[in-house]
Amino acid sequence: MAGKIYTAGLVVIGDEILSGRTHDKNIAQIASWLQVQGIRLAEVRVVPDVEGRIVEAVNALRAANDYLFTTGGIGPTHDDITVDAIAAALGVPVVIHPDARAILERYYADKPGGLTDARLRMARVPQGGELIPNRMSGAPGIKVGKLFIMAGVPHITAGMLEALTGTLEGGAPLLSETIGCWTAESEVADLLREVEKAHPECQIGSYPFFRKGRVGANFVVRSTEADQLAACVDALCAALGEEGMDFTPGGI
Amino acid sequence: MAGKIYTAGLVVIGDEILSGRTHDKNIAQIASWLQVQGIRLAEVRVVPDVEGRIVEAVNALRAANDYLFTTGGIGPTHDDITVDAIAAALGVPVVIHPDARAILERYYADKPGGLTDARLRMARVPQGGELIPNRMSGAPGIKVGKLFIMAGVPHITAGMLEALTGTLEGGAPLLSETIGCWTAESEVADLLREVEKAHPECQIGSYPFFRKGRVGANFVVRSTEADQLAACVDALCAALGEEGMDFTPGGI
Repeated sequence: MAGKIYTAGLVVIGDEILSGRTHDKNIAQIASWLQVQGIRLAEVRVVPDVEGRIVEAVNALRAANDYLFTTGGIGPTHDDITVDAIAAALGVPVVIHPDARAILERYYADKPGGLTDARLRMARVPQGGELIPNRMSGAPGIKVGKLFIMAGVPHITAGMLEALTGTLEGGAPLLSETIGCWTAESEVADLLREVEKAHPECQIGSYPFFRKGRVGANFVVRSTEADQLAACVDALCAALGEEGMDFTPGGI
Repeated sequence: MAGKIYTAGLVVIGDEILSGRTHDKNIAQIASWLQVQGIRLAEVRVVPDVEGRIVEAVNALRAANDYLFTTGGIGPTHDDITVDAIAAALGVPVVIHPDARAILERYYADKPGGLTDARLRMARVPQGGELIPNRMSGAPGIKVGKLFIMAGVPHITAGMLEALTGTLEGGAPLLSETIGCWTAESEVADLLREVEKAHPECQIGSYPFFRKGRVGANFVVRSTEADQLAACVDALCAALGEEGMDFTPGGI
């Protein structure tokens, strides 16, 4: 019997993603990390660097999910407005976090200009925020309740995720097994539907590809229940075998 | 004087993106293509293969934008529910498109099983839908008014975009110029803010990087007005020069 399903929303903040200039890597990285924590990524919204749009997306997704992540917009420049937008969404003021200020004071002590106002922007957090350390760079992320404010630069976000690993309450992780098959999806559409119907605790996704001049598809069976998953995979392999299909457990 | 700004929303449909299994490539591809058409991508939502969630996202983004694109979920298998969800969102029935049926009849005429019910699913469109041809594969996309239903597989969507090129009414394309600089963002945060403020028709985005052991940033100036853009770029280069910065027009 499956327990509570934990879900997360993700708001990707950045004109550079919406203009096509930067290819987002955070969706896939956060999605994969959440799976391991037993949390499902339920929705992603990509919004521009506009406070009202960020507030709207943050409020919609935090109301609907156990956790909310954001990426982008936490640097020192004028287009970094994530902290202000999230404070507005939460209805709290922005404050300087003393530990973040201390980190920046040390870092800029021997640099020209010292800790300027622009640099001090990076110590700002929504009131109640705690720092998420990361060993990839000095800049911390911010945790405010169930809300996690991460960097836009993927390897910095990777460091923050590493610091958070194992600290979020999750449910049973979603397990999956893949079966690859050299067939057009349409050949096995009825078979897939029937096998899924007979295993109500499992979902089957079908992902077609075209490789080496041949069409094929990977069938991904997902479930939080290991025994149900195994039964569904066995039934699918048996059904493909009966049809004389050329299939490969583990995927192609 | 800038004219009307045309906007588009994008709904990416697919459990495989939310699980982290597949790295989305359609957001960047559609964003870049829209820029050239003079249309801004205003928001993206990634939702699972669940009809109610697709309907909600489609209705929210089509109400807020001139155009709406979707990717994913238009194949022949049971998890391909995009056409049904969009028909539900539009409040119209699903019908078999005669041209799509004819294409499939020809394609499957000499194949075992012929045009099965599963295969015929690929000829289904929301009532009023027209086909978007593509030369990359037989499977067409679907246009229903201002709504464009595209494939999940990126190279197939590329073919559909090619067929649509130049057919959507757009505004002045958003122009951009990039200036790269070997500096920490925080060194020039005030300078960027002031230059942007002095050029109200322009936005400046700052995108930091860490390469070859050094920190740097690319500053992207965007405007629909070529002369304003040039003036802002000139002002930014002059200001960076006054500060003795090592900068490179065109970006690093």
